Amino acid sequence: MPEEGLLSQFKRFVVGKPIPAHLAHHERLSRVTGLAVLSSDALSSVAYATEEILRVLILTGAAALTLSAPIAIVIATILAIVVFSYRQTIHAYPTGGGAYIVAKDNLGELPALIAAASLLIDYILTVAVSIAAGVAAITSAFPQWHVNRVELTLGFVVVLMVGNLRGIRESGNIFAIPTYFFIVTTLGLIGVGIWRVVSGDVQPVVTPDPVRSEGASLTMFLVLRAFANGCTAMTGVEAVSNGVPAFRPPEAKNAAATMLMMAVLSIAMFLGITLLSQTYHILPSERETVVSQLARGVFGDRGAAYYAVQAATMLILVLAANTAYADFPRLASILARDRYVPRQFMNQGDRLAFSNGIVGLSAFAGVLLVAFGGDTHSLIPLYMIGVFVSFTLSQAGMVLHWRREGGAGWRTSAAINGAGALVTGVVLIVVAITKAAEGAWIILLLIPLNVMLFRVTRRHYDIVASQLTLRGWQRRARRHNTVLVPISGIQRAVVGAVDYARTLSSDVRAIYVNLDTSATEHLKREWEQWGDGVPLVVLQSPYRSLMEPLLDYIERVSAEQPEGYVTIVLPEFVPARWWHHLFHNQRALLIKGALLFKPNTVVTSVPFHLRQ
Amino acid sequence: MPEEGLLSQFKRFVVGKPIPAHLAHHERLSRVTGLAVLSSDALSSVAYATEEILRVLILTGAAALTLSAPIAIVIATILAIVVFSYRQTIHAYPTGGGAYIVAKDNLGELPALIAAASLLIDYILTVAVSIAAGVAAITSAFPQWHVNRVELTLGFVVVLMVGNLRGIRESGNIFAIPTYFFIVTTLGLIGVGIWRVVSGDVQPVVTPDPVRSEGASLTMFLVLRAFANGCTAMTGVEAVSNGVPAFRPPEAKNAAATMLMMAVLSIAMFLGITLLSQTYHILPSERETVVSQLARGVFGDRGAAYYAVQAATMLILVLAANTAYADFPRLASILARDRYVPRQFMNQGDRLAFSNGIVGLSAFAGVLLVAFGGDTHSLIPLYMIGVFVSFTLSQAGMVLHWRREGGAGWRTSAAINGAGALVTGVVLIVVAITKAAEGAWIILLLIPLNVMLFRVTRRHYDIVASQLTLRGWQRRARRHNTVLVPISGIQRAVVGAVDYARTLSSDVRAIYVNLDTSATEHLKREWEQWGDGVPLVVLQSPYRSLMEPLLDYIERVSAEQPEGYVTIVLPEFVPARWWHHLFHNQRALLIKGALLFKPNTVVTSVPFHLRQ
Repeated sequence: MPEEGLLSQFKRFVVGKPIPAHLAHHERLSRVTGLAVLSSDALSSVAYATEEILRVLILTGAAALTLSAPIAIVIATILAIVVFSYRQTIHAYPTGGGAYIVAKDNLGELPALIAAASLLIDYILTVAVSIAAGVAAITSAFPQWHVNRVELTLGFVVVLMVGNLRGIRESGNIFAIPTYFFIVTTLGLIGVGIWRVVSGDVQPVVTPDPVRSEGASLTMFLVLRAFANGCTAMTGVEAVSNGVPAFRPPEAKNAAATMLMMAVLSIAMFLGITLLSQTYHILPSERETVVSQLARGVFGDRGAAYYAVQAATMLILVLAANTAYADFPRLASILARDRYVPRQFMNQGDRLAFSNGIVGLSAFAGVLLVAFGGDTHSLIPLYMIGVFVSFTLSQAGMVLHWRREGGAGWRTSAAINGAGALVTGVVLIVVAITKAAEGAWIILLLIPLNVMLFRVTRRHYDIVASQLTLRGWQRRARRHNTVLVPISGIQRAVVGAVDYARTLSSDVRAIYVNLDTSATEHLKREWEQWGDGVPLVVLQSPYRSLMEPLLDYIERVSAEQPEGYVTIVLPEFVPARWWHHLFHNQRALLIKGALLFKPNTVVTSVPFHLRQ
Repeated sequence: MPEEGLLSQFKRFVVGKPIPAHLAHHERLSRVTGLAVLSSDALSSVAYATEEILRVLILTGAAALTLSAPIAIVIATILAIVVFSYRQTIHAYPTGGGAYIVAKDNLGELPALIAAASLLIDYILTVAVSIAAGVAAITSAFPQWHVNRVELTLGFVVVLMVGNLRGIRESGNIFAIPTYFFIVTTLGLIGVGIWRVVSGDVQPVVTPDPVRSEGASLTMFLVLRAFANGCTAMTGVEAVSNGVPAFRPPEAKNAAATMLMMAVLSIAMFLGITLLSQTYHILPSERETVVSQLARGVFGDRGAAYYAVQAATMLILVLAANTAYADFPRLASILARDRYVPRQFMNQGDRLAFSNGIVGLSAFAGVLLVAFGGDTHSLIPLYMIGVFVSFTLSQAGMVLHWRREGGAGWRTSAAINGAGALVTGVVLIVVAITKAAEGAWIILLLIPLNVMLFRVTRRHYDIVASQLTLRGWQRRARRHNTVLVPISGIQRAVVGAVDYARTLSSDVRAIYVNLDTSATEHLKREWEQWGDGVPLVVLQSPYRSLMEPLLDYIERVSAEQPEGYVTIVLPEFVPARWWHHLFHNQRALLIKGALLFKPNTVVTSVPFHLRQ
């Protein structure tokens, strides 16, 4: 295209070139890349899950920290159950079985919308929590940056936003690096840590600024709070089951194998970090993460291996945040197709279509990070509700799926998913009860609010559709079009507008409002030369207003021709530089605004291009 | 008009009904109302002028305060000279001789623009300083509100803005009340004060939180600083000479008499307050104005007379701020007529035309009040530069006026204005030197910046005019118009757009982008029923984009018909509620943006009104 519009150029600059349709799916995932791309969210949560357990237990004193081991074992067991449950979803939904789709297919509209609302909130919190935890890894290594942690988190949000607007998510292979780097350093940390324990070479770590015990008594409620916090280790396990179609054939088999691998790694790292933290007598701290303390204890203070652990942790957490940038617009697009969110989110034809979702996601995550001071621990209570609502609905949907499908062994399948639904449902209840006061109430309000917005949106589109349907509609074509050209003088732009108007209709009239008799007489004489035979209508204006007489005249014309259109043709300056707009009246906008609700009236601007 | 647009209704609600032309000038000013309306700015400055002198002198210690009397006498003398000088302007410019007009007539473009820039800045500072001083009168009487003074000043700005948007300035007579109330209470204060001095009944006033002496030495520079501060008593004296045509005939004579009366009152009140403050040993305070302390000393603590003085002071200061609300848009309109400011400021046909100026004035004054903590004393250095630049240019212009006019006694007239120009020029230099460091540098930068903006604006309009002139221009009327209707499906809004397009041209084509072959086949069949004979063009889209193929096709059409127009007709939903806009694509805007710079291409939206 030789002349490209400004907007189009701007779009290209920000979001890059569009991808041809036939190239979009050429990169399929192997098990190795699939693990890297789809499990960063699940694996990265081990970076903060242990700490979240310890931060609750410490409230009763350091002695209670030994409870972290049994709590972690219970969580690991639940994680295993959930993973087995999701492996069945992979086989049942080879085209991708997100909680919304599974719930919609099997449970109906309301559970599906609850799942969708939970997931959208969940994606926002994935960004906020992962970035907060990634920044905590940095500030543990460089304590002097602790005071700037909110700014750092916002910096990461901006980087991810701009990166995704420009489309970094297309280049999949680069994502393998942080995930495997994290797996290697974390397993290395655990391996060396165990070796030191075995060889009796453990030296307790000195915790800077430890979280103080509040002398709380060790109640069942407190243990449940610690358990609920630790369940954050499970966040992200569903990612593989959503991404089945991205795998190389046989898709379901590769995805299931990848999920198993992810579960084994996740459980090993979570238990390893939790048990070693106990052995090394690590206390939760306001300034340094548990993983950072453990790495110092195992590798010695601030050596290369220590910094590698911190860098890997930071990288995988940012990568985990990045997965939400692909998931959020994808779900928004599915919801837009079902008309539950505005259709601006639907079109996937251009990258620009995703930008609404990307900017929205970044804005919400940024607000949360500022509101909660960039602190992982404060954000966790908000995170868990959405995650476990969607887990529970998804598993419950699968139970009904198997019952409906029937077939050989459907009872076994239903039993596995039923177990998954049961344990995630119980965790959801525990989380809701123990975390409501700590901020989860916000999410318990936002989910129904979101569901309401989905329904309002759907209702609007249904009403619009009923007004647009052609079924039983009688067409009443209008044939006459009265074209009016309001003028305030005669110059090239006006003559251009008159020339254009002449192509539209045989009934063209120029309209002039008389504010000054001598100017009007002068204009009438000029019109004889330049009017090209178009009649000039001069309107009187008792109130010195330009708009009122024009609007009155339009009213009269449409009364004369009730079966016709009225078209107002206005010349519109298109300045060569954007700030030149400041120099020109918004008269066309005013007239458009005034006529917006008038039926069968069209306002047309004829651009006149200023050269400088 | 039976159906009124939203915008129009909103405008009515905010700014009220327009005034018929024949009513606009029916209220002419007598000398009594003229004094009230046009001298509030000049008279009100005595409320803070004395204090501004004392605040500088106190820096060397309380002993120096006795210098306030000779300084005030010098200022009163200069004020008398300036008033005599301005009385000549009244007779020479019976249609109103503002500094811009006088400078333009006699000194040329650059001095005129400097005067205009100074005046616009001056009006902003009149609002800021008067409101700050008015609020100081309130917080002197009610010290508990002192901490909220910035909020109070902003509250007054909002009240004045909304009041002026609604047109309170039309109702002139109500303005007589605060001015005469102020004159009566202030003369009463001075009278009773003198009587107490004569009867030996003076009790020194206890100053709360007095401004501390910094032990500075009493240099000539410090005395000049005090003098420069006191010259604030002169601000506003030019108002009567600007408003000559508002008087009843004989206009010039009535205006001149009013100006003399104003000068006598101004000098009497300024000298009275300054001398009594000295007798009552009043020290400037951080929390209470000098006038408030004097009123307490004369009338006793917090009696009815005391509160009357404070109320009158507050009222006349708010009224003085209000005069800028009439002056600013008037000058902006004159400058817009001369094409030095954007033409949005020009049209006086509707009250709405003034609203740009009123909102701008309020915003700038609000920013100043926040930036300077709502403190009169901090704002004064900024105020004086603009005032004395315009004084000096105006008087100097008059000298040249008399020389050019000649006639009997022109030398005397020139000498009087020359004396005015000389003293105001000297004050200007004193102010610039002594106040530059205290903030006047901002104004010394803003004036040339404003002048530059005036010139850029004028240059733009001159270039536009040269592109619009019909002189020597060859009209090349185009006759063909290819009308394209891009469609994404078939429904009533699309059929409506096609029906409208059919009235515009015999060459109408519907355009559909093929993204899905089966949907395209379905559409083709539907088109046979609803297309009304309009040919359907199906475009292929290798990149899944809707825009690119459309833009390419438009390119091809305009290449085929280089002497024709291309019109794009789009259906546009007009939702019943404004927030329903969120539910609909901005596709028309995108297409308009992409085609904005394409010659001979017009984009037309055909409204489809949704009922709910």
